Amino acid sequence: MIVEGINCAHELLNANYPMEKVIINKELSKKLDNIIALANQKGVKIEYVDKKGIEKLTKSKNSQGVLCFVSAFKYCQVGDILKDAETKGHAPFIIILDGIVDPHNVGAIIRTAECVGVDGIIIAQNRACEINETVFKTSAGAVAHMKVAQVVNLSQTIEKLKSKNIWVYSLEAGNTSMYDTDLTGAIALVIGSEGEGVSRLVNRTCDGTISIPLNGKVNSLNASNAGAIAMYEALRQRKICRK
Amino acid sequence: MIVEGINCAHELLNANYPMEKVIINKELSKKLDNIIALANQKGVKIEYVDKKGIEKLTKSKNSQGVLCFVSAFKYCQVGDILKDAETKGHAPFIIILDGIVDPHNVGAIIRTAECVGVDGIIIAQNRACEINETVFKTSAGAVAHMKVAQVVNLSQTIEKLKSKNIWVYSLEAGNTSMYDTDLTGAIALVIGSEGEGVSRLVNRTCDGTISIPLNGKVNSLNASNAGAIAMYEALRQRKICRK
Repeated sequence: MIVEGINCAHELLNANYPMEKVIINKELSKKLDNIIALANQKGVKIEYVDKKGIEKLTKSKNSQGVLCFVSAFKYCQVGDILKDAETKGHAPFIIILDGIVDPHNVGAIIRTAECVGVDGIIIAQNRACEINETVFKTSAGAVAHMKVAQVVNLSQTIEKLKSKNIWVYSLEAGNTSMYDTDLTGAIALVIGSEGEGVSRLVNRTCDGTISIPLNGKVNSLNASNAGAIAMYEALRQRKICRK
Repeated sequence: MIVEGINCAHELLNANYPMEKVIINKELSKKLDNIIALANQKGVKIEYVDKKGIEKLTKSKNSQGVLCFVSAFKYCQVGDILKDAETKGHAPFIIILDGIVDPHNVGAIIRTAECVGVDGIIIAQNRACEINETVFKTSAGAVAHMKVAQVVNLSQTIEKLKSKNIWVYSLEAGNTSMYDTDLTGAIALVIGSEGEGVSRLVNRTCDGTISIPLNGKVNSLNASNAGAIAMYEALRQRKICRK
């Protein structure tokens, strides 16, 4: 998989993400000093090419002169996410993506989840996009720091989380505002797709619905913004309430 | 200007946005019943074409069978935004975009701003993208409900806002968390570009900086997510504190 961009390369190298090599546009090598130094420090092979060499490897015009040849994303198990939260000594905070197929949205949600300190992301095998090059890029490399589990059946996974005393809320238009919901304990938030929202079966399996108040005439937020707003409300509550 | 997509058409028609005609893919006309009914109700001319007719008019594959021929966006004056807040009887809440050139980010911010009930957006003539087709589409048409003023000099505009007792905060990494800042009064929030943040001069002109806490290893949020998080924190405070 070829992942591009300065920020992304920076995060992947910092995270010691498995990488075959870094390709650098030698005409821009002065601007890319930091990336070159970091790759050297991490013992990652660097290849210098000219602009045409970069263009042969990527169709995009957003490489900023850096391409990383990285291994496919390694998904984890849901159990790994829970163990990680336990090791960190806090109540798990999990994000579940239901039917979000746009890699830009998935990448943006993972980036914000990493900034919040979410323990892991759960996605469905069939109703979500893979963690691909675009997700890497739009997450600004944050995906390299994030545990992502891919599951066959979201509803069954939600049932298992509930059996471990994790409260699972779907983010949907509804009566109960997230501001009136206690998000300080062990929680999982389900974010649905823009077009269809959270699927009916998944919704029914959740403990409840939390909504983001809407004051305008447009009746929906985009999926990544909605996710960001809800994750930060949870963070606000958890920071203030944790001792 | 040709603006595409079902949601967008819906909002533009609802907002009585000046429109020459709506083009409908007649092969999809059953799915587009609501849009057709709304266009008829609003007295907007409808033209039916086949798939090829749509493809002749747009290169994008996201038209969903609907294209609106609309007038160029009409910017307002900063004074109009302030007057509007006064009419609504609340302290102004304004968003200022500094150097955000990606129309997807501008569109997403305007969409969330509309959902929050922000009174208006101020953008710089030189350091921001125009309100173009992509902004219309990514705002899901919310831009049709939103006042946007384009100004020559952001710093001078900020000085004017300050002279009207509006507190202007730039959204930047820093010491003062937005959670510890009173956002219930007359405020303007400046959102900078992802790469460069808020420009130095604009930053210096602001009353202060507010930051979004970051708990992860990645040290920045994307511009639209950052904007969404800050706007909703302001909304939370304003809702709770307003009587």
